[in-house]
Amino acid sequence: MDFSGSSVVVTGGAGFIGSHVVDALVGRGARVTVIDNFSTGYRELVHEGPRVTLVEADLLDYPKVLAAMAGKEMVFHLAANADVKDGLLHPRKDVEQNILATQNVLEAMRAQGVRRIAFSSTGALYGDARVFPTPEDAPFPVQTSLYGASKVAAEGLLSAYAFGYGFSTWIFRFVSLLGPRYSHGHIVDFWRKLRKDPTVLHVLGDGHQKKSYLHVEDCVRAIMVAVDRSVAPEAAPIHIYNLGHPGTLEVNESIRVICRELGVSPELRYTGGERGWIGDAPRILLDTRKIEALGWAPTKTIEESVVETLRFIEANPFLHHPASAKKE
Amino acid sequence: MDFSGSSVVVTGGAGFIGSHVVDALVGRGARVTVIDNFSTGYRELVHEGPRVTLVEADLLDYPKVLAAMAGKEMVFHLAANADVKDGLLHPRKDVEQNILATQNVLEAMRAQGVRRIAFSSTGALYGDARVFPTPEDAPFPVQTSLYGASKVAAEGLLSAYAFGYGFSTWIFRFVSLLGPRYSHGHIVDFWRKLRKDPTVLHVLGDGHQKKSYLHVEDCVRAIMVAVDRSVAPEAAPIHIYNLGHPGTLEVNESIRVICRELGVSPELRYTGGERGWIGDAPRILLDTRKIEALGWAPTKTIEESVVETLRFIEANPFLHHPASAKKE
Repeated sequence: MDFSGSSVVVTGGAGFIGSHVVDALVGRGARVTVIDNFSTGYRELVHEGPRVTLVEADLLDYPKVLAAMAGKEMVFHLAANADVKDGLLHPRKDVEQNILATQNVLEAMRAQGVRRIAFSSTGALYGDARVFPTPEDAPFPVQTSLYGASKVAAEGLLSAYAFGYGFSTWIFRFVSLLGPRYSHGHIVDFWRKLRKDPTVLHVLGDGHQKKSYLHVEDCVRAIMVAVDRSVAPEAAPIHIYNLGHPGTLEVNESIRVICRELGVSPELRYTGGERGWIGDAPRILLDTRKIEALGWAPTKTIEESVVETLRFIEANPFLHHPASAKKE
Repeated sequence: MDFSGSSVVVTGGAGFIGSHVVDALVGRGARVTVIDNFSTGYRELVHEGPRVTLVEADLLDYPKVLAAMAGKEMVFHLAANADVKDGLLHPRKDVEQNILATQNVLEAMRAQGVRRIAFSSTGALYGDARVFPTPEDAPFPVQTSLYGASKVAAEGLLSAYAFGYGFSTWIFRFVSLLGPRYSHGHIVDFWRKLRKDPTVLHVLGDGHQKKSYLHVEDCVRAIMVAVDRSVAPEAAPIHIYNLGHPGTLEVNESIRVICRELGVSPELRYTGGERGWIGDAPRILLDTRKIEALGWAPTKTIEESVVETLRFIEANPFLHHPASAKKE
C-alpha cells in the first residue's frame, strides 16, 4: 500500500510499539491520527504537528472513536492492555481493553467506511504450545492467560468482520519486543530491582524460561513489509503472520547480559517453578517462515536488543523510574 | 460427579438444550436454579417447584447473576445468542451475550466460590475446517462468523479461569442439535415456508451443504458422561469434547425427509453458492473419538432425529408459529 498522502489511525500510538508505527508511517508520507488514553502510553512519544494529530480518548468511548475514523484509509490497532503477568488481578480489564475496545474500533470503521486494519496480536495465544517453532496453524491452543484469551477473541472479531463485511485484515502475532521506548517487561523489572539493591536479584520462576524476543524496529519493518506485499486483499482478506526472532534467550542469559552492562554481581534468588507466573509459557519460539517468505529478516541479535533496551532505559529514566511508573 | 442433593445453576435453562439439561439434572437428584432472560427461551419449558427455581434475568445483570450463584456447586452455562446466520445484522450481540455474559457468569462464580462449569461451545469455531472429521486439536482455525468468534472467546475465558483461578471446566463443541423443543434452525425454517406455500421452497445455498446433527438427548447424555467420568479435575482442569454424530446429512436429503413427512412436493429454488449464508461452513463433521472413548455413542440416526424434530414442531406450534416467533 502506498501511504504517501494517505490518512491513517494508529490506536495506542503513544505506546512502545505504536509510536514506532507512527514514525514509520510518517516516514512514508502518511498523515497519522493517534488515539491513546495514556493509560500506559507517554505524551513525550507523540509529536503533534502537520503530520500527526492526537485524539486523547479511551477506545471504550465510542463517539470519539467514531469521529476519529472519518475519512481514514487504514487503521493500525495497537492499543491494548499488554500486562500479561497481572491479568488475574483485574480479570475484566483484558475483556474491556482488548475485546470491547477492538469491537469499538471495528464498528467505527464499519460506520465510516474504513476497511483495512492491521492488528497487534500475540504469540501468547499459543498457550503451552506443543510444536516449536510454533507455526500460525499450530494445533488449536488452549488459552493459559486472560491476555491470550482476549487476543484470540479480538483476532476472531477481525476475521469475522473480514468474512462478513469485506474488511482486509493483517494480524501479527508478536513475541516480546525490545528496543527504544520499551516500557514494561522483565528487563525494566530487573533494572529497577538492581538499581534499588545491586546485591540481590529475585527472579520469577527457575530462570530457564526460554523465549524469543524481537527488536521493535525489526517488528515494525515486518508489519510494513506484510501490508505492502499482500496483493489482492479481496481474494485473501485475512493475513496472519507470526513475528519473532529465530533465536531464543534464556532468562538466566538475559540476567547475565544485564548484570554485565550494569557492572553488578547480585546473588540470584529464584521463586522456582518452570513458569514466571500463572499462565506464563516457559518456552516461546514462533515459526516465522511465512513473513520471511516476503523477504523480511531480523537485523539484530536478541543480545544486541537487550543491550540496546537497557541503554535506552538508563538514558530515559522518565519512562521507567518506579516513581513515574504508571502500571498498577 | 454425584448430583444427588447438589445445587446447580443452568443458564439458558428455558431454552432448547438447557431445558433438557435441567431435566437430566433433576433426574439425578439435583436442585436446579434456572437463569434465563426468555429472549429465546420459553416459560412453558421451566417447571418451577421444589427442585427447580427460576431466576428471570439477563446475564448482563451482574447483581442478579451474583446472587443466583450463592451456595451452588456447579454451573451449566448454556445461555447464548445462538443465532449464527443473522450475526452480521447486530454484531455487538454475540460479544455481549456470548462473551460479556460468560465473563459475568465466571466472575459471579469466582466471587461465590463456585469452581465447576460446563459450557456449550460450538463446532462453528472450526470455521472452514481443513480436516474432516475435525478433531479437538485441529489446526488453529480462522473464524468465519461472529458467533464462532464469540465462542472461541468464551472458551478462552474459561480456560484462563481454569489456569488462573483453579476452575474445573468442561467445554462441549456441538454440531447442530435436533429433537424435542427444537426452536430454530433449518428444519423449522423449511416447515414455516412449506406451511405457508407447499408448492415452492427457497433454499439457502446449493443444497449440498453436508453437516452432522445430533439428537439433543444423545447430546445431554454425552455431557453427563463427560462430567461423571472426568477424574482428578485438579490434574486436568480443562476438558474439551466435540459432540456430534459420525454421520452427516446433506441439506437436500433433509428436504427430502421433511417433504415426505409433510406430504408435499415443492419446486426447489436455490439461492446458489456453496454456503447458506456468509460465514456458513458448507461441511461440518467432528471427530468424536474423544467422547466415545468414555463409553458414549449416539443412539439415533440423523434421519430419525429429523423426523422426530418435525413431529415435535407439528405437535407444538406454540414454539414455532411465525406469529409467536421471538427471533428478530
